[in-house]
Order: sequence, then C-alpha cells, then structure tokens
Amino acid sequence: MEFMYSEKVQALQARVTQFMEEFIYPNETLYEEQLAAQKDRFGAIPPIKLELMQRAKEAGLWNLFLPDSTYGAGLTNLEYAPLCEIMGRSALAPEVFNCNAPDTGNMELLERYGTEQQKKQWLEPLLEGTIRSCFSMTEPDVASSDATNVEASIVRDGDEYVINGRKWWSSGAGDPRCTISIVMGKTNPDAPRHEQQSMILVPMDTPGLKIERMLPVFGYDDAPHGHAEITYTNVRVPVSNVIWEEGKGFAIAQGRLGPGRIHHCMRLIGAAERALEEMCKRVEARVAFGKPLAAQGIVQTWIAESRMEIEQARLLTLKAAYMMDTVGNKAAKQEIAMIKAVAPQMALNVIDRAIQAFGAKGVSDDTPLAFLWVQARTLRFADGPDEVHKAQIAKLELRKYATQKASVN
Amino acid sequence: MEFMYSEKVQALQARVTQFMEEFIYPNETLYEEQLAAQKDRFGAIPPIKLELMQRAKEAGLWNLFLPDSTYGAGLTNLEYAPLCEIMGRSALAPEVFNCNAPDTGNMELLERYGTEQQKKQWLEPLLEGTIRSCFSMTEPDVASSDATNVEASIVRDGDEYVINGRKWWSSGAGDPRCTISIVMGKTNPDAPRHEQQSMILVPMDTPGLKIERMLPVFGYDDAPHGHAEITYTNVRVPVSNVIWEEGKGFAIAQGRLGPGRIHHCMRLIGAAERALEEMCKRVEARVAFGKPLAAQGIVQTWIAESRMEIEQARLLTLKAAYMMDTVGNKAAKQEIAMIKAVAPQMALNVIDRAIQAFGAKGVSDDTPLAFLWVQARTLRFADGPDEVHKAQIAKLELRKYATQKASVN
Amino acid sequence: MEFMYSEKVQALQARVTQFMEEFIYPNETLYEEQLAAQKDRFGAIPPIKLELMQRAKEAGLWNLFLPDSTYGAGLTNLEYAPLCEIMGRSALAPEVFNCNAPDTGNMELLERYGTEQQKKQWLEPLLEGTIRSCFSMTEPDVASSDATNVEASIVRDGDEYVINGRKWWSSGAGDPRCTISIVMGKTNPDAPRHEQQSMILVPMDTPGLKIERMLPVFGYDDAPHGHAEITYTNVRVPVSNVIWEEGKGFAIAQGRLGPGRIHHCMRLIGAAERALEEMCKRVEARVAFGKPLAAQGIVQTWIAESRMEIEQARLLTLKAAYMMDTVGNKAAKQEIAMIKAVAPQMALNVIDRAIQAFGAKGVSDDTPLAFLWVQARTLRFADGPDEVHKAQIAKLELRKYATQKASVN
Amino acid sequence: MEFMYSEKVQALQARVTQFMEEFIYPNETLYEEQLAAQKDRFGAIPPIKLELMQRAKEAGLWNLFLPDSTYGAGLTNLEYAPLCEIMGRSALAPEVFNCNAPDTGNMELLERYGTEQQKKQWLEPLLEGTIRSCFSMTEPDVASSDATNVEASIVRDGDEYVINGRKWWSSGAGDPRCTISIVMGKTNPDAPRHEQQSMILVPMDTPGLKIERMLPVFGYDDAPHGHAEITYTNVRVPVSNVIWEEGKGFAIAQGRLGPGRIHHCMRLIGAAERALEEMCKRVEARVAFGKPLAAQGIVQTWIAESRMEIEQARLLTLKAAYMMDTVGNKAAKQEIAMIKAVAPQMALNVIDRAIQAFGAKGVSDDTPLAFLWVQARTLRFADGPDEVHKAQIAKLELRKYATQKASVN
Repeated sequence: MEFMYSEKVQALQARVTQFMEEFIYPNETLYEEQLAAQKDRFGAIPPIKLELMQRAKEAGLWNLFLPDSTYGAGLTNLEYAPLCEIMGRSALAPEVFNCNAPDTGNMELLERYGTEQQKKQWLEPLLEGTIRSCFSMTEPDVASSDATNVEASIVRDGDEYVINGRKWWSSGAGDPRCTISIVMGKTNPDAPRHEQQSMILVPMDTPGLKIERMLPVFGYDDAPHGHAEITYTNVRVPVSNVIWEEGKGFAIAQGRLGPGRIHHCMRLIGAAERALEEMCKRVEARVAFGKPLAAQGIVQTWIAESRMEIEQARLLTLKAAYMMDTVGNKAAKQEIAMIKAVAPQMALNVIDRAIQAFGAKGVSDDTPLAFLWVQARTLRFADGPDEVHKAQIAKLELRKYATQKASVN
Repeated sequence: MEFMYSEKVQALQARVTQFMEEFIYPNETLYEEQLAAQKDRFGAIPPIKLELMQRAKEAGLWNLFLPDSTYGAGLTNLEYAPLCEIMGRSALAPEVFNCNAPDTGNMELLERYGTEQQKKQWLEPLLEGTIRSCFSMTEPDVASSDATNVEASIVRDGDEYVINGRKWWSSGAGDPRCTISIVMGKTNPDAPRHEQQSMILVPMDTPGLKIERMLPVFGYDDAPHGHAEITYTNVRVPVSNVIWEEGKGFAIAQGRLGPGRIHHCMRLIGAAERALEEMCKRVEARVAFGKPLAAQGIVQTWIAESRMEIEQARLLTLKAAYMMDTVGNKAAKQEIAMIKAVAPQMALNVIDRAIQAFGAKGVSDDTPLAFLWVQARTLRFADGPDEVHKAQIAKLELRKYATQKASVN
Repeated sequence: MEFMYSEKVQALQARVTQFMEEFIYPNETLYEEQLAAQKDRFGAIPPIKLELMQRAKEAGLWNLFLPDSTYGAGLTNLEYAPLCEIMGRSALAPEVFNCNAPDTGNMELLERYGTEQQKKQWLEPLLEGTIRSCFSMTEPDVASSDATNVEASIVRDGDEYVINGRKWWSSGAGDPRCTISIVMGKTNPDAPRHEQQSMILVPMDTPGLKIERMLPVFGYDDAPHGHAEITYTNVRVPVSNVIWEEGKGFAIAQGRLGPGRIHHCMRLIGAAERALEEMCKRVEARVAFGKPLAAQGIVQTWIAESRMEIEQARLLTLKAAYMMDTVGNKAAKQEIAMIKAVAPQMALNVIDRAIQAFGAKGVSDDTPLAFLWVQARTLRFADGPDEVHKAQIAKLELRKYATQKASVN
Repeated sequence: MEFMYSEKVQALQARVTQFMEEFIYPNETLYEEQLAAQKDRFGAIPPIKLELMQRAKEAGLWNLFLPDSTYGAGLTNLEYAPLCEIMGRSALAPEVFNCNAPDTGNMELLERYGTEQQKKQWLEPLLEGTIRSCFSMTEPDVASSDATNVEASIVRDGDEYVINGRKWWSSGAGDPRCTISIVMGKTNPDAPRHEQQSMILVPMDTPGLKIERMLPVFGYDDAPHGHAEITYTNVRVPVSNVIWEEGKGFAIAQGRLGPGRIHHCMRLIGAAERALEEMCKRVEARVAFGKPLAAQGIVQTWIAESRMEIEQARLLTLKAAYMMDTVGNKAAKQEIAMIKAVAPQMALNVIDRAIQAFGAKGVSDDTPLAFLWVQARTLRFADGPDEVHKAQIAKLELRKYATQKASVN
C-alpha cells in the first residue's frame, strides 16, 4: 500500500494547477460577462472559452480523460483522478480541457463501441473539440433510475431506423456546436428485459428532432450548454447509425456510466476543495461580534468536518479508480456505487457550509459556490439516484453472507 | 392548554384555502409564462398578479398580517399564523394577499413608528398595494449578522440628511412599483453602540440613489421583485424623513425583525406542507423496479420524518406566536430565536426529500420545489444566521443557571 | 389554541417538583448505595424507595397516571403529561409515585379489561404498591415488532389453560414483590391473524414458570426490577385467568400500548430536561483552554439544539395527549406514532451531548446521564421500533392522497 | 499510489484471522462465563484468557504493535493497522495478542524514553505479558482535554519524589497482575506551561497509593481490567523512577498519544466490521411483516451507509499510518486528529444500526454489540475529545491561508 501520487501524476498536477491559476480562475468572471452580454445566451460560445480551449490544447492538457493512448492521453483512472479533481474546482474548466460531460462519456462510448465510420465522423471532431454532443436517455414519463423503463421507440424500416419519443435532460443540446445526439430507445419490446434497448446516433439537424425547451436547474439555464427537452417524431437515420448492435443499449449504458460516474466524483472533490478554500479565506477575513469568523468554534467545526469528509471521499474515489484499473469495472461495482453515493453528498455538505459562512453573498454569483452546489445537487440523482446505489451496495454486502449460508447448507 | 384552532381561525383558513385552490395554484404557471414573455423581466408586473390582488382585496383577504385593526385585519399572531402558512404554499401567494416581505415588515414599522405624514404618504399606498417598498440595511463590506456593523453614513446638513453608502440585498427594489426605500445607516458614530444607527425614508427617485445591479439567488433573478445592490451617493432627504428619531435604528430593527421572522417561519411551514403533498402524490403515481415509489421503505421514511418535522416546527411556531401575543416579543425572545433556527432547516429537509423523490424534474421549474428550496435556504441567514440565533438561545438557557449561581453567592 | 398549563396542572407541577427536590434528587445516591450494599441485588428493595413510596402516597402524589377516578387520580392525558415528565427526570422517581412501567400499563389493562375478581386480586394491590407485575410478550425467536409473530402456546384443557413458551424482556420480573405475570400467547393458530392471541394472568409462583436469567442492558442489570428471560413449561392456570376473552390478545396489546407509549415519551422529555440542566451547570463551571466550556461555540450549539429539540418534542407529545383525550387513541394514531419515533431519538441526542460535555464522568454513574441514555436507547425499539412507527406514519400520510385519488376516479 | 496490502501483510492477516476464528470467537462466551463465575470479578483473570495468550505467543502473534524489532514484531504502522483492526473485532482479542491499551502505550513509552533499568524492570515483563500496567493522568477536578490542567504534585525530596493527587480513569488498575502505574503530575508549576509536568513510575504496592473505587462505564465494570479512581497520598518513589527527565511529561504524553490514537481507530474499524457482519447475518435470518429484514429498504440503507463509512474511515486511517511511517507523527498531525474524530463516530453509527436491527437482543450481552458500542462511545473523549481534535484540524487548515496572507503582505 502506498499513498503518494506517482511522479508522473505529480508533474501533471503541477501543470494543470498552473493552468488553472494562470488562465481559468482569472477568467471565470470574464466568461460570465461575455455570456451575459450575448443577446441569445444559447446563441454562441463566449470567445474566452474558445481561446482557453486552444491554449489547453497547445499546452498538451487535452483529452486527459481517455485511457486509450491513440486518441487520448493514455492515463489510467488512478492517474486521471487527481487531474479531473483539479478541473472540478471551476465550472469553466472541464470543457477547456475537453474533459466535460457528456462529451467525455460519449467519446468513450464511440471509442469503445463505434464503427470506424462513426469514429471518423463523430469521435474525431469531438476529440478535436470542434463539435459537441448530447446524450438522450432520460424521459419525462418514466422513472429513469430504472433504465429498462425507457419507452422511446426505434423501429427498423428498410435501411433506416425510425425514432419516436420524448426525452429530457439531454444536456449539452443547447450548445450551438452540438451536432450529434446519442439516443437510447427500444428496438425490441419482446426481447429479454436487458436486451430491448439500443443506442443510435442522430444528427441534431435530422428532420423530426425538435428541441422543445431548455430546462432550468434551480434557476440556472446553464447556457450555452443547457439541458434540453427534445421530441423525436418519425426521425429517420440510416441503420449504420446504430451503436455496436441492436439490443446492446443497456449494456452500453452500463459501460458508459462507470467512468462517467467516477469522473463526476473526482470533479465533486475538486468543487469541495474549492469551497473549503473559499470558506477558509472568508472566515479569516470577515469579522463579526468582535472577532474573525475563523475564531468561532462552530466555524472551526465546519472546516474540520469538511476536511474530514473530503479526505475520506477522495481516498475512496482513488481506490475505486485503482480497482477499475486493476480488477475491472465489474469487480469494482461496489466501490463505484459507494463513491457515487458518497461524493455528491459530501460536496453538498462542504459547499453548503461555505455558503453559510458567506451569508447572502454565497447564494449570489459573486462566488462560485451557488452554481457548484447546484451541480452537486443534481448528481444525487443523475446517473442513478443515491437510493439505487445504496440498494446495490447493500445487495453486494448481503451476498457475502448469503453465499456463506448457501455453502453451509 | 388547547390545540384546536378557534372557529374564527378555522373559517379564515377555509376562505384562504379556497382562494388558493381557485385562484393561486391554477395560475402559478400562467404567472411564470407572463413573466417569461416580458421583454424586461423587471419592467412590469405580470397582469395575472395584479388581477389576483384585486380579487383578494375584494374577498377581504387583504392585509391579514397587520395586528392593528384600523389599518389591517386586527388578527393576533396566533390567528394570522395558520393563514400565513397557507400563503407560504405558493411563491405567488403572499403578495396577492398583500402579505409579502419586505412590505409587511415595512408597513408594520411605519404603523408603529411613523409620523402621521409618513403614514399618509407611504403606509397608506402600501396598504392599498399600489406601491411597493424595499429595506436597505445589509452591506457588502461588513457582516450584517451583527447589525451594529452597518457603515452607511447619514449626516445632518441643515434641514436635510445626506446619505452615503453601499447596500445590497435590498429585496423588492426591482419592482417597478417600488417607490420607497427604508435605509439604515449611522447618524452618530460616537453614540453608544446601539444608538449610533437611524432609519430614514428615501424615495427611490431621489438623485444619488442608484441601482447598480440585481443579484441572483442560486440562478433565480426573482423578477420583478429582485434583490438589488444600491449605492447612495450624497442622497438628500428632508429631516422629516427620519423614522421615530435619530439613534433609534437598532431599536426599530429589533422590533421589525420579531414579526418578520415569525412570518417567514409560517410561510416555510406552508412550503414544507406543499412539498410533502407533492412528494406523496408523486410517489404514489411513480413506478420503479416494479412497484410505486411509495412502497419503498426509504421513501416512507422520508414521508414520516417530514411529517414529524413539520408538526413539531408548526407547534413551536404557534407557541411563539401565542407568547408574542400574551407576554410580548421580548419575553418570547428564546421562542422566536428557536423557530427562526428550526423552520428554515426543517423546510429544507422536507423540500430536499421531495426533490429527490422527483429526480431531475424536482430541480427544474416544472414543480414549485426548486424555488421554494432556494427561498428556504436564504432564510438560514436572512434576518440573522442560524448561528446567531443558536448563540442567543444558548445564552438565554445558560442564564437560568447563572442567575441561580449568582443568587447563591 | 392556548399554550398555558391549566391552574390545576400548574398546582400539581409545583407539588411534584417540590417532592422531587425534597425527596428524590437528594436520595438518588443513597438508593444506589443501599442497592450496592445488598448481597443479592435482586433480593430486596432498598428501604429508601419503600420509604419514599409511603411519603408520596401520603402526599397524594400517587397513581396519577390512571385516568379512572375511582382507582386513580382521574387526570386526563394532557394533565398527566407534564407531571409524568417531571418524574422522568430521575430513574428513581416513577415507582415512588407508583407510576412506573410496566405496572402502569398492566394496571390500566386490568382496570379496562379485567373481571371484578381479577381487579380485586391483582389490580388493587398493584394500585396499593404492595405487589409488582411483569408483562411477558416478547420472545427471543421471533421479531416482536410484529405482534402476530408471538409463538407461545396457550391451550385449553378442561378448566385450565396450559401455557408453553419462552419469553424474554419480561421487565420487572426480578423484583421480589413481583407476583403476577401477564402472558401473551396463541390460543388459536387457525383464527384470523389478529384473533389468534390471548392474554392470561400467571402468578409468578405457578409451577413450570422459571426465570432463566436476568438480562443486562448495556451492562446495567437494572436490579432489583430486572429484565427476565422466562420459560413457561406446562404452566397451568384456571380458565378464569384469561383477560377479557380468548382471541383478544392483539386488541388488548394495541390498547395497552397507546398510553404506555405516551408515558414513555413524557418521561423521556423529563430525562432530556434533566440532561440539559446538568450540561448547562457543568459547562458554566468547567474551564478548558482558558475559558468556561459555556463560552465555546460548539457547546452553545449543543445547548441551543437541545432546547429546540426538547420544546418541539414536548409540544408534539402534549398535542398527542390532547388528541387522545378529545378524539380518542385511534384518531390520534399518527400523533402517537410520531412521538414514539421522535421522543427517544430526541432524548438520546440531548443526553449524548450532555455526556460529551462531561467527558468520562458522563459515562460513569456519578451523573444520571449514562443510565438515562440507556433507558432512552431501549425505547427506540421497545413498544415498537422507530421503523415500524415511521412506516405507520407514512401509511397514514399517503392515505390522504390515495383517498383523494380514489374519489377522483 | 497502490491500494493492495503487501504480501507480508496479507500473510499476517490470514494468520490473525485464523487465530480469531479458531480461538477467539468460539471462546468469547466462555470468557464471560468464567468471569461471571468468579466470586470477585477483579480477583483473577479467567483462565481461558491466560491460555489463549500462551497460544498467541506460541503462534508468534505477539507484540505485533511494537515497531521496534528487538522488543516487538518490527511492523510499521501501515503493516500493523490491518492486524490491529482484526483484533478489534472482539473485546477479548487485543490482550490475547498482548496488544491492548493501556499496556501498548506504556510499553512504547518505556521503550522510547525508559532507562535500561526501567526497561529491565517494567518493559520486559510487560512484553512477556506477565504483568500489567496503568496510566494515571486524568483527574476528576480539571478538564483533562487540556493536559496542562493536571494538578497532581510531584515534589522532589532528597533522593525521592513525593506524589500527591487524585486520579481517575486509570484503566487496567483493576487487574490483579497490574504492578506499575505511570503517573503524570506537576514537578514545577513555575516552568513554562508545557514543561511543568513530569511522568513517573509508581509501583502499585507503594504505600499511599490507594484504589478508591472502580468506575463503571454505562453499567459495565470492565472487570478484571477496570477503570480506577486512585488517590496518591505522600507516595514516595526513588528519583530514578522519573521517565526521561523532569519537565518532559507533556512531551511524553504527546508522543504516547500518537500511536495510541491510531491503534484505537484501527480497533474501532474492526469493531464496526464485526457489527456490520452481525447485522447482515441477522437481517437475512430474521423475518417481520412477511419478509426478511434484509428486504426492507431502510435496512439496506443502514448496510450501505455502514459499508460506505467503514471503507472511508479505514482508508483515512491507513493513510495516517502511512504518513506516520514516512513523514513522521508531527507531519501527520492533521491526519491523526482526523481519524481520531472520524473513527469513533463511524463505529458508533455502524454499531448503533446493528443494535437497532437486533432490537432488545442488541442491548443485552447476547451479542458483542452493546459492549463494543460502549467502548466506542468512550473514545469520543478518551485521548482527547472530538471537539479538541476538530479545533486542531481547523487550525491546521486555516494556517494554509494565513501563511499565504502573510507572504502576500
């Protein structure tokens, strides 16, 4: 056992941190200002983001998430984790490094299951950062915590598939660069429960695909990225657009969510670190009732508990990453479920304390806290609600003794 | 002891409830749509609100908050509490009944401390609902949890006062009908600590008063009401605009906050009841993993704990109201501090569980939950952070034994 | 609505409080010493307790729990609640006033369902305090959270019933004055699920009744009261010993538990008040790191949260009592379930904070805290675990909307 | 970074586990029975324990705690941690492996600071397990969370020191084999605050040393080990009995507590694992309301949260151990404080859930849960209360930014 980051990782941490300090933090406000100045918040990307993306690419801090070394940086999960964490400190950062959801998940999916043609057409520009993508799975009418509930239909008609359904929370669909949607639907309602679904590539400009509205998240529109409600009405795409093959939708979803979940957790740890730092600075500078807030016992308790929760969540996340790298996503199932249940709640706790330390300023946009909190809150159900992960953890835990019992009989 | 609402109250509850069902709930969405359709969200009041205000006034459900029976409905705090609770169920409701912050607090303040002239000029149109007001106390540069920190200056110059300072979170200042601001500042930095401050009336169109920006709250602009950052630069008003007299600012603030705090708590209980109702309906209708969410143990735990927390918070709030009515705000100090610390956290717990039961829908604006949550969150620091209230409760509790000790010696 | 205790109650409160101060608190240590000096801790009752019982009887503070005015004091639940609370402040007190579990529950049961003969033989000496009783329901082999699980058999054989089974947690069976056990068992396994059980009176000296051992509770033997494991082997009693009639066991259990539960909650509130008082005195007197513990923010938070939790739990308990008095135990079902889930956890929170404020002293027997904590802990499952109460609360809550739904269709 | 135990550790884990399964678990009840059968619970050691100690010594599973390879097993903290954890699964185990508090701390102290003579006389028989020791630091009259409060006096008089004071919670003093006490007291009240104290060896049979009483912990006497209140009245020992030298008491205490704290945390993790295992087995076997407890959502939540908390606390403890080994106890200060605040609360959470799953059985001694809970509870203040550790963590956290600020100016 060994708790030091490798030298390779330490060097990368230093480079990412330096980039953050030099380019990200100083431009957070500018980005918001450029966005606010746009007539249509979904109409364009504030130029500073495009400029920073170019810089990151030139600095070689690009596509670090992708374990595949042809397309990506070839880092293991354990190596990527501490870098992803640093990016999570700013809502602006992940995309600057081309490491943002849902594009990362979509790129991994294409890299793993896509045909050569699909890779050429969609994966490569995504890796270049010239286009963006969305992921259309969740539906308003069914509980998507249970993926087999998906009801959109994908029906083969000659050389085409015809897609009908209503999706929402297709995040990223608001981006003017978004040109491709990965849609999950049912190709065969009569197949076994986990083989009814398929995933298919639908270009955003396909007739019948309509963005009905952009959904707010606690008042944030998250522009220009955005969370879209989309209707698919007799949308037709060539059969070659199916990913992997018919009936593999559920399997792909499972595969896609593993890395996606751990990336979210890494970023949440970074968000919590940022919040703790902001809180510490605030309470040292702010005076009430004759002494700095930092001298108050309850504030010290907040800081201590935040540090304790962050450290524990980080170690568990790193261990999950290590296991994914060494024994595989399946054997790491309990660990992945654990961090997905642990990290969002931990981040919410820490950020909420920081907000309280800031008072009214903390709920405005004068600090990054309010938006980080909102992002963390959505992750208590996005990619599976806490309750589903906990049920899974319990099932795996109980199995240890059930097996024992069985072997005794 | 007796736990039934009086017949008078029950009759009023029925009337308010019926109004809510007939006019408020069915128009919540329309209000949002009308607002969204405005070119400038702060430019006008969506007509449906004005129409509903008229209706409520005609129905005699108007100014119920004001204990004074000349100007208001003459209800005690205990009588008003269950009505205010019902209004708290919808973000749209309080103003429809002319019972919304900060106007209620400002009206009470004017009723209690205003001159006849001030009442005529400002209180009466406020009671009519024809103008709105804001309250300018909090400053960005100092911790306003400690009211003596206020730094804006109010300097007498002949027959005028000259006001200079920067305020923020002047809620309601965005409303186009807002014509008057009550400003707290220092008239005499050399007076004893609690007599340095004064409150003064400043018409919104006074030269030198400038709205710098509207502050968002977790992404919500709260338009057209809004939360303003305002600078006061050599703002001049006649000396007759001072409220009560010089040096009474802190005393007025204390008096203003008592009823204001309990109103917030009542509304929070209503918000929690709304959330619990929405959650119950949702979990009965929504199916995952083969059974309604309502059949899951963890969901039942959420419902039970919500009901337990709501009941307790309501009883404590009613008791505080009863004490304010019978022994006065000062003797009810510990109870007021308790409900102010209890109710926001209780509401946050309940609403958060409801959001989790709704998943992604719960953080959008398709339910009232996200906005109700945000409002509740701000009340963990608005009108005094939890920590200050708890310190106060502890001080009063410890005093029981300190007195004992003192009397022994 | 009205939050003052009646004059009658205030007068009784004053008398009980005076008795506590004069006779109970000053003798807590003496009681423990007398008990410790006994060769057999279960062999006798420390004389001070018998002496205090005599005093309380003479003072007319006796059998206050019994609503029936022939046998008891004729107080309503609402009137008894604040008195029972005061008794709960000391583990020594309840029996001194003849208001201790399980005897109170057994007396109520006999008063309500017993024959004249049963009352004469068992109820009267219990009311006199000359004998004690136990309640034999829980069994080691089945989950007694579900009362229908009871497996002890009660089989009629001519003019006698023959009882066989193993019971545990028959509290009070250790007392040398304990002469009667109320046993729950199955008379008819083929009857409908809630009519299979009966309750029957079994004198402790009946052949075949054997106390196997006394069970400790977190190390406490709770002598001389004690918690017994008892085997019943071919125990024979006359048929006239059945209570009410065959098949009524479940119904009696439900009736017995209502008042029993609320008494527990009242006492828990008293225990929490005692703990808060001890904590306040301690932290004012104890100095660490240069200032009294009372000056530390975290300690103030403990005090404030304790006061907040106690007040809320008390109000809810009083409301439940009020409802039991006015609309009956059945209509008060949700309230009773709520206080049973709320009060033990509340008391545990408060007592645990007090223990922490005392450090090591708090886990010894130099303060009443450790024992009060242990008693409170057992009440998270005794008379129904929290989880069962919460499920019940949720069921009743959901029913509101289910009915609505049904009426819509 | 690397999350696998080394092969060396894995081999030791297997051996300790096998010993536990073969000798410890099967004899837990026997140990309690032998103890209960003793006339004087403090009069002798139940023979099974002595027998098992012999076995462990023969198996080479002895003194694993001591990093020094001459006297001990030469394991690093990181290597010892997972073994200590396994021992923590049973209250019987630690001493069987000669790895129990306070002897381990005392042995380390002697090994590090003792003279050759002191080592020969006291360390060697302790390492052999033929004698036991106690640690006399805490005093009833002062807050020992602040070690400088210690008031016992140690005054030099010629070739002797004269000791006067009252100590309590001298754990282990009840053991008939206990022959030596390490006493902390003040040698020089005029020295700088952290140099006033000294530690000195006092044989238990020295005239003037009197065990006043054994203190219970939540009803447990913890015999024959015991927690003693001891008075030292004009106790005289030769000057050579001082440890290290005069004025080093505080420094030694700091050094002693580092490893002592981490050992406690390791054992707590084992206790939590044991509780989780017991809970899982119980809920699979126990049926209520028609299904196994394991099928209930709330029980699954308990299991999942327990697993999540255990994993995180273990990783943090291992990291602290790793840091102690690599950068030293001082640089690991924040980590040590964190695990000391995290592990007891984590263990309490897990054990409490297990108790609830067992109901009444869980608070009796029919499972190891009640005693494990009590041990864990004492560790929320023993060796420093949570609050002191959290204040320390916050101080170290805030220092990061204070330094920054300083360097900016």
